[in-house]
Amino acid sequence: MAYDPGNIFAKILRSELPAYKVYEDDRVLAFLDIMPRAAGHVLVIPKAPARNLLDVAAGDLAAVMAVAQHIAQAQMQVFEAEGITLTQHNEKAGGQEVFHLHVHVIPRHAGVELRPPLSYREAPEVLAEQSARLAAALKKG
Amino acid sequence: MAYDPGNIFAKILRSELPAYKVYEDDRVLAFLDIMPRAAGHVLVIPKAPARNLLDVAAGDLAAVMAVAQHIAQAQMQVFEAEGITLTQHNEKAGGQEVFHLHVHVIPRHAGVELRPPLSYREAPEVLAEQSARLAAALKKG
Repeated sequence: MAYDPGNIFAKILRSELPAYKVYEDDRVLAFLDIMPRAAGHVLVIPKAPARNLLDVAAGDLAAVMAVAQHIAQAQMQVFEAEGITLTQHNEKAGGQEVFHLHVHVIPRHAGVELRPPLSYREAPEVLAEQSARLAAALKKG
Repeated sequence: MAYDPGNIFAKILRSELPAYKVYEDDRVLAFLDIMPRAAGHVLVIPKAPARNLLDVAAGDLAAVMAVAQHIAQAQMQVFEAEGITLTQHNEKAGGQEVFHLHVHVIPRHAGVELRPPLSYREAPEVLAEQSARLAAALKKG
């Protein structure tokens, strides 16, 4: 399947849409999901075009996962999480909604179920505050 | 949290328990989940001890994900999948049941929901046939 540069994450990468960024380097961007399944839900994407896991370049996948690990470690502190759930969806049948590879990194607390996907929109001021705290924790390393 | 070498995936790595293996190299092992959430559900693990995403060595994580990508590509062919869902759970609150890092790579078909975790045990002869087909597809590359 071809890569469509009109997807919303490509627009974020081109700064045509805003995002609550938490981390960025030459190869990877991480930002808050504005429809979080739990507080502090982050999306990690490669900057290079990739539809999903089936076509991503090996180096980009490795870079995305290295960042996902750092995000998870930071979420444990910042959100006092007790666990982390990763999901990654490929093609419509696999649950993919935006056709630029993304890894969901979701802080978890015992006994709290994940919200269904796309069921809740977080308030902008909450997202701004969470992204600032997470970015600060990631800078400290 | 410490690594417990008594977990069942460590036992599989030490050949103390059997597994329906689909791929193996110096760093990574992949085998069928005997309680699949969909037909052809594979688990990919590092050979080195790692409790989960929070403590895995960067190189092992990259190696696991590279294999997960090849598994996903092979599942699309072997099971005529229409999509792939990846999940990866960390700590009890994150959904982790076995405390050796593992990535779930699950073939999907449109309109077919995933079974709940640990809700269905596949027949040995089905697992044997599926692992043989998947291993053969992975060898062809």
